[in-house]
Parts: sequence; C-alpha cells; structure tokens
Amino acid sequence: MHTMTSSDTTDLLDPPPGGVLGGVAGRVDAVLERFLRARADELADLDPALEPVADAVTALVSAGGKRLRPAFVWWGYRAATGHTDPEVLKPAGAVELLHTFALIHDDIMDRSATRRGLPAVHTALRDHHIEAGLSGDPEWFGVGGGILAGDMVFVWADMLFEAARLEHRAMARARRVFGQLRAEVMAGQYLDLRLSGLPAASEADSLRVSLLKSGRYTVTRPLQMGAALGGTDPDLDRTLSTFGDAVGVAFQLRDDVLGLLGDPDTTGKGSLEDIREGKRTMLILHARDQATPAQREVLDRVVGNPDATRDDADAVRQIVVDTGAADHVEAHLTGLRADADRAVEHLSDPSRSALLELASVAVDRSA
Amino acid sequence: MHTMTSSDTTDLLDPPPGGVLGGVAGRVDAVLERFLRARADELADLDPALEPVADAVTALVSAGGKRLRPAFVWWGYRAATGHTDPEVLKPAGAVELLHTFALIHDDIMDRSATRRGLPAVHTALRDHHIEAGLSGDPEWFGVGGGILAGDMVFVWADMLFEAARLEHRAMARARRVFGQLRAEVMAGQYLDLRLSGLPAASEADSLRVSLLKSGRYTVTRPLQMGAALGGTDPDLDRTLSTFGDAVGVAFQLRDDVLGLLGDPDTTGKGSLEDIREGKRTMLILHARDQATPAQREVLDRVVGNPDATRDDADAVRQIVVDTGAADHVEAHLTGLRADADRAVEHLSDPSRSALLELASVAVDRSA
Repeated sequence: MHTMTSSDTTDLLDPPPGGVLGGVAGRVDAVLERFLRARADELADLDPALEPVADAVTALVSAGGKRLRPAFVWWGYRAATGHTDPEVLKPAGAVELLHTFALIHDDIMDRSATRRGLPAVHTALRDHHIEAGLSGDPEWFGVGGGILAGDMVFVWADMLFEAARLEHRAMARARRVFGQLRAEVMAGQYLDLRLSGLPAASEADSLRVSLLKSGRYTVTRPLQMGAALGGTDPDLDRTLSTFGDAVGVAFQLRDDVLGLLGDPDTTGKGSLEDIREGKRTMLILHARDQATPAQREVLDRVVGNPDATRDDADAVRQIVVDTGAADHVEAHLTGLRADADRAVEHLSDPSRSALLELASVAVDRSA
Repeated sequence: MHTMTSSDTTDLLDPPPGGVLGGVAGRVDAVLERFLRARADELADLDPALEPVADAVTALVSAGGKRLRPAFVWWGYRAATGHTDPEVLKPAGAVELLHTFALIHDDIMDRSATRRGLPAVHTALRDHHIEAGLSGDPEWFGVGGGILAGDMVFVWADMLFEAARLEHRAMARARRVFGQLRAEVMAGQYLDLRLSGLPAASEADSLRVSLLKSGRYTVTRPLQMGAALGGTDPDLDRTLSTFGDAVGVAFQLRDDVLGLLGDPDTTGKGSLEDIREGKRTMLILHARDQATPAQREVLDRVVGNPDATRDDADAVRQIVVDTGAADHVEAHLTGLRADADRAVEHLSDPSRSALLELASVAVDRSA
C-alpha cells in the first residue's frame, strides 16, 4: 500500500494486538516504564529523600489511563508517512507525561483526594509527611509537594520528547505544536476554573473551554504533533484539525455526561464530584436555560455547593433529563461524530479506520 | 584579543553600560518585553478573559529582579566563544522566565501575599475574582489560577528558549543543560520544603539544598547553558562548574543572612518571614548546634512558628549572633569567594573580570 522504507516496521503495529489503542498503549507503557525508572534513579542519586516523589508519580502513571493521547500522536505520524517508527513512541509518551502533570495539578485545584483508584499525588505526599514524622502542616506539605511533583513531570515530558532520535527539522516542527498544546491546555484550564465562578456562563463559553482544554489538547494537537514528525502537508493538517476538534469536544461532552449520569462503579468517579465542583458543562447550562422556575431554583442551590447531598444530586440529574438537556447533548455528540467521520473520508487505510476506531473509543464509552 | 567573526558585536556589550549586569539586563528586558507582549496578545485572542493572567505575569517580570541568571548565560557564552551574539539573549531571557515561574509557585507554597512590592500573582488573581464578582472561594481561585499562571510561564520559558536562531547542535547541547537545570530546581525546592519539617536537619542537608535550588540553578547551569550554546570544552565546563557551585551556594547563604539579619527596608522582605516559615538555613542549624539549653529552647519555640512575634524574631537574631553562627557563615562565604576566584584565575579578560564582578553582585549585596 505504501513504499517500504528502512524505518518501516509495519509488522510491529499493523494490525496491532488489542485494537488500535491497545497496540500503541503497550509499547508506550514500556517506553514510559523505562524512562520513569531512569528518572527515579537520578532523583535517588540527588537525594534519597526524593524517592516519595518518584514513587507517587510512577504509581499514578502505572495505574493506567487509556493512553488515548499517545495513540493520536502515533496515528498522526502514520497518517502523514504511511509507515511507523518506534522513535515516535517517545513524543507519544511525552504527551502522556504531560497529561500526568495536568492530572497532578488538577487534583490539587479540585481538592480531589484520589485518582485512578489511588491516593492523588498530593494525598500520597501528605501521607508521607505524616509517616515520616515531619513537623508542620501535612496538608500544606502535600499541596506544595504536589505542585513540585507536577512541575517535575512537566520537565520529564520535555526530556522524553527530546529523547526521540528523529530528524532535527521534524523535531523542530513537532516542538512548535507541543508548545502550542501546552499553552492552550493551561489557558483552557484557567478558563474552566473561571467558568465555575461565572454567574452568566453560556453554552458557547462552555464549548470554548471544551475545545481548548480537551479538543485541542486530547486529539487535535497530538495528531498534528505526530503528523509534524512525519512531514509538512497543509491538507492533512486541516483534515486532522477538523477531525480532532470534533472528536476532542465530543470526548469532553461524553466525560461531562459520564460525570453526571454515569455509573460511579464504572467511571471510578464519585457522581457528586462534578456537581459539588460546580462545573458549568453544556449539560448543566442547557438544563438551566430550559428549566422551570422551580427547577432553576434547585440547580442554583445545588450546583457548586460543596455540601450537596446524594438526594440533591439525584434531583439535578432528574432535571437534566426532564429539561431535555441530556438528549440535547447526545444530539450534539451525534453531529460531532458525523463531522469527524466526514473529515477523514478521503484518508486511506489503515489510518482512516484507526482514526474512526479511536474516535469510538473516545466518544462511545461508559468509563 | 580574539578573531572577529560575523556575529561579533563587541561594541554592543564591551564595555557594557551599567556594569556587566546592567549591560545584559537592559537588553534582556527588551527581549522579554517584546516576547511577553506577543504572548499576551495570543492569550487575548484565545479569550479576553485570559488578560488578568497575562497582566499579573507581565507586572511581576517588569517589577524587576537583578537579571543575574541571564547575565550568567550571556557570560558563559562569552567565555566559551570570546564573542557576543544577540540571539543568546533569548535563552538568557528564558532562564529569567523560568525564574518567574518558580517565584509564582513559590509564593503559593510559602503563602507570601506580595512579591517585588506588588501583589503576588495568586494574590492578584484572588483580587480579580473579587472585582469581577465571580462566585466561589476567591482564595482558592487565586491558588488554582496562580498554579496555572506559573505553568503558563514555564511553557513560555521554553518557547523563548526555542526562538533563538542558533545552530541546531548548539541548541541541542544547551537544551540538555536547560532540562537538567529545571529538574534540579524542582528537586531542590522539594528538598527545601521537606527540610523545613525535618526534626534532625543538619548543616550538610541545608548545604545540599542550597547547592541544588540555588547554586546550580542560579549560577552553574546558566553559565554552562551559555557555554553550551558556544561550543564543547570539558576544561571550561569544569571551570564554570567549580566557580558556579561556589558562587551559587554563597548567593544562597547571603540570601539567608539578609533574610534573617538584613534591613527589611532594603531587602523588601519582612524579617519575620523566614523565621515563621521555619527555614532551616545554615545560620539557624549552626546556631542550634552551638546553643545553650535555654537558647535552644527559644529556637525550637520560635523557628517555624507562624505566630512568632517581632520580639521572638529579635531573640532569634541575638542567638544567631551570640552563638557565633553569623560569623561562621561569613567565614564560609569568604572561603567560597576564594574558591570562586581561584577557579577563574586562568580565564582571559573580559570574561574573567565579568565573572568576578557578577560574583560580587551575587554575594556582596545588601538587598
């Protein structure tokens, strides 16, 4: 289907075991594991007291995650070149480490004590403070240590990116996309923080945040980064951008739906969390828009109330269904999926079918 | 004195106006100002709601600082090549932006409300939350927003570094040093946080933290980064490392002395802060080691006590003088200065005299 080159290792990943995602995930995990072990050794050499930081970060990375972002880097490269190169696993792993950094800082800002079924990094470092018998406030040590652990992983993401032995102009192109990805996610996170406190937030405000902190960050920029490692092609770049923005926003909308209406046993996330945090999702904003005065009173009282009860949450969920907000978001999701499918129509296989499969993984999920 | 090359712009900086530091600082400031204006425009294009973030960061950078780290990058390059190149101002500015990031996160961890005579970034964003009439907890919005603003500047530091149009192998060498610098400062900051809670901290523990979070970060790595942009020379690298570690640790010791014994009107820092934070400086650790039981009782009661009074602080200062800890640290400083002078003995001018002058600025200061 394409010209064989010296870096063509199609047998390595085509067809990949465990679907498009599984095939990349296992190999990225191997890269991450080796890389993190080396960083942990370096930290221990600097000072054995740094071990709890390395341990907490390694535990978080090992505890899973779908490795969706690395898969998009991988398939962006594949779409651009038609072949595979194991060196691409390093920038792909870098994007996963950047996500690890974002989760660590996020859990501090959201005051979430757990992540992926483990203590969040700031919780683990608080516990270390207590176990080691250090003096001072363990909670604040956890916050400070967590900020620094996140910053450390941020640097590591960069180091893993730079470890890739790829042509230096390709690296320079991809580095620019990586810079853009990182600036946008920070901007999106800040706007999200602000949105929670915005009295007159609109569906448009919410969609813009979803595009920056999720669409661009999770799908579009990883795809473009992979493509940039392969070459320069404005047409492909536009295709990946249209596909990525649609799938990425859909990914966030699915996340919002699961956070509010999903089964906590499957999502691993307390169903009350998003409500107590006061997340202004499209779901909530549309419900508020369509609500009766009585329903609106409930929404205003419960959403963003850190003391909201399970009964309160049930009432909000019922309103989201009764106002048609749940259906409204599902319809929007269907439209985004159609946009995404159309965008990659002219790509050839296996890239086209891999991207469609990744879109399914991102959007049609229950966890 | 050296071969003229096309990138030789000796007239630009030799002799520099305002001393070795002033000459670089003005030019770095111009680079930073232009760069930050472009980033602020980009943020405003993404969403006008991002303006308070850009404003707070720009205000902090504009409020000053000695631009000591950029000067070390500049003179590292000069020592390696004998000439100057305006492109070096970009990596030099990147090191200053990285320092800005560190200050923003530091002020959150230390709960410092002000910096350089202005509201700290997290304070400015808290104030914005109140003025904009957002709902929710303004303090926590400030913390979250400050973490994200810091993360944003971290990305910007990288972008400014990458903007330098220098030979790609030189950039690759310097990038490795920049990675090392960033990992070390995070490690040093964590160890410093931990040191504050360590019941049996020793002078050796304190010196190791000073080496990582200050010596390497402020002097050695910036110098080596500049040198790496110029070429590869193991002898010069060793010279800069010996000089840098000595000056850098001395810089931190001077900071500790000024923080405890300096004039708050000159240092711009409340004299109580370091005592309340419980900083385990060489000064405090040596005093504790030499203290009578009565003096030790005072130190244990006051250092790290967030409610310590001015009288408590005066008592601690008196003990630091009476136990000979102040003299002990001054003697150590003199030794480090001698090590630094000896290290650069064989370098030729103007690099040698510039480095000695920078060492003076770093160590023999009253603010």
